[in-house]
Amino acid sequence: MNKNRLEAFSDGVLAIIITIMVLEIKVPHGTEWKALQPLLPVFLSYVLSFLYLGIYWNNHHHMLHSTNRVNGYVLWANLHLLFWLSLIPFTTGWMGENSFAPAATALYGIVLLFCSIAYWTLEQTIIRKNGKDSLLAKAIGYDLKGKISPLLYLTGIALSFWSSLAANGVY
Amino acid sequence: MNKNRLEAFSDGVLAIIITIMVLEIKVPHGTEWKALQPLLPVFLSYVLSFLYLGIYWNNHHHMLHSTNRVNGYVLWANLHLLFWLSLIPFTTGWMGENSFAPAATALYGIVLLFCSIAYWTLEQTIIRKNGKDSLLAKAIGYDLKGKISPLLYLTGIALSFWSSLAANGVY
Amino acid sequence: MNKNRLEAFSDGVLAIIITIMVLEIKVPHGTEWKALQPLLPVFLSYVLSFLYLGIYWNNHHHMLHSTNRVNGYVLWANLHLLFWLSLIPFTTGWMGENSFAPAATALYGIVLLFCSIAYWTLEQTIIRKNGKDSLLAKAIGYDLKGKISPLLYLTGIALSFWSSLAANGVY
Amino acid sequence: MNKNRLEAFSDGVLAIIITIMVLEIKVPHGTEWKALQPLLPVFLSYVLSFLYLGIYWNNHHHMLHSTNRVNGYVLWANLHLLFWLSLIPFTTGWMGENSFAPAATALYGIVLLFCSIAYWTLEQTIIRKNGKDSLLAKAIGYDLKGKISPLLYLTGIALSFWSSLAANGVY
Repeated sequence: MNKNRLEAFSDGVLAIIITIMVLEIKVPHGTEWKALQPLLPVFLSYVLSFLYLGIYWNNHHHMLHSTNRVNGYVLWANLHLLFWLSLIPFTTGWMGENSFAPAATALYGIVLLFCSIAYWTLEQTIIRKNGKDSLLAKAIGYDLKGKISPLLYLTGIALSFWSSLAANGVY
Repeated sequence: MNKNRLEAFSDGVLAIIITIMVLEIKVPHGTEWKALQPLLPVFLSYVLSFLYLGIYWNNHHHMLHSTNRVNGYVLWANLHLLFWLSLIPFTTGWMGENSFAPAATALYGIVLLFCSIAYWTLEQTIIRKNGKDSLLAKAIGYDLKGKISPLLYLTGIALSFWSSLAANGVY
Repeated sequence: MNKNRLEAFSDGVLAIIITIMVLEIKVPHGTEWKALQPLLPVFLSYVLSFLYLGIYWNNHHHMLHSTNRVNGYVLWANLHLLFWLSLIPFTTGWMGENSFAPAATALYGIVLLFCSIAYWTLEQTIIRKNGKDSLLAKAIGYDLKGKISPLLYLTGIALSFWSSLAANGVY
Repeated sequence: MNKNRLEAFSDGVLAIIITIMVLEIKVPHGTEWKALQPLLPVFLSYVLSFLYLGIYWNNHHHMLHSTNRVNGYVLWANLHLLFWLSLIPFTTGWMGENSFAPAATALYGIVLLFCSIAYWTLEQTIIRKNGKDSLLAKAIGYDLKGKISPLLYLTGIALSFWSSLAANGVY
């Protein structure tokens, strides 16, 4: 089984997720600059989610680049990751339309947490599949060192943003 | 004629189908956790449809992986499958917004039934095209054994879910 | 310049056009089978447009399969075709929601006419680019015989459907 | 790191951006030709944005065609470009629904300006990465001459359109 279609499908889903978020920025009815003001939190949460999805796409790209073989488990672990990522536009929209209200911001953080868990699961599944071929495993192992840190960093950001935004949302 | 564009186009359509379903989960107006409660059936039907489309994508991936040649009939059988799959977001939305009402759940089951018929038709069309080359036919034949069972299983799930949810929907 | 990205981009746009039409089939508010009745013309126009876009994708696939070289003119002729095809969801929606009213049906026919003109332009542009290499031109020439007929046929269908539906729409 | 997925992802995002703009052309409620009249500015701004995105896709295609190596900076510079391009459907919708009102037209011009800056940044990032291999750098250098001019031209159009449309929007 080759990984080309896995990459193509993931690219398609990620491209759609990253783009449909822009549909949440509803066209305002006014024609003045002031009409854009209520859209500011929506826009900010769009930028934030665009960054997260960009990070995921980059990491996904690097991970699969150093992968040779995929199997059914990898396909499903990948779909699992895409499922959680696909919830980001919804939580982004809820958070944006409510100016970072606490519940919406918390939900946003929860979905990001599940995304990072799903990413880690996918990584482990790929390593298990490619484990027998020690050279590959090593290469992935080395890559992992560089990858675990942004992942932790990512989760860190998620939590910090979550709390800082939650703080923002309190008032 | 090669199968690359067939795969790419199918991936594109499936990626969009699987992602636009999330647009049915409308952003709620409230800012409390309670505001999410009416979205629960919508969310559950999203998860269900995501699983089905994931299964179809996986099976489609395996089937085309063991295919060498495609012709006009295969292209149309594939479009036929995509047509029925493209109706899933609509039935998912109808079922979700009505908390699994009987008619909506039945329609959901009917569309899934047509999907499995279309999948079976595509499989037969591919076998007919690749039939002359006995080695390929064999390989597909072997693969079929492993593929008919998940297909039956899938139809089984479709029907069982359909009845159990229909039962759920009665009250 | 190679044709791979041209194919990939066209596949992407066609996949999205064919799938966003399903968003026009709005989820009804009722939970009864009767709630689906007003959706019948919307559904029929969806089926019709799905067929047309399927035909275009198939022909596009065949045409580019027998193409070796592309240049800037081909890229733009292709974008021109995609532009007219991208208007199909809008005209489909207008026609479907008005039960095949005359103006809507006429507009549908007009857009289809421009699509077929754009397709013919693309074909001519590709032939001009590949013309120097006589073998290729010949191969495309032979292919053309088989391709002009479905194109005429398609235009024929477009016009006949247009008049028959217009007739339908009168009452 | 190869550039295939970068191309595929960019194609996906561009294909979606170019197609979701058509969703802004809302299906009118009337069945007469007159019902289409208020849609004229929406349609014109759709044509304009389609042209711009077509130009960007074409230039992006040419630029990556003459690129051999990509790195993390290129990936992010590309995402940065896609971010600004993804705002075009929103500004197109705002401008179209307000018949080219001044603020909306100005915002449209601003987003186009950021797009061209992002494009230029991407170009510089790619040159820096491929700089060591002088042959490549040269080839890109030559290409640049032909590419800077359309870019300037593009910015020129952006500004001229911006002012002419702004002029239009004044009354």
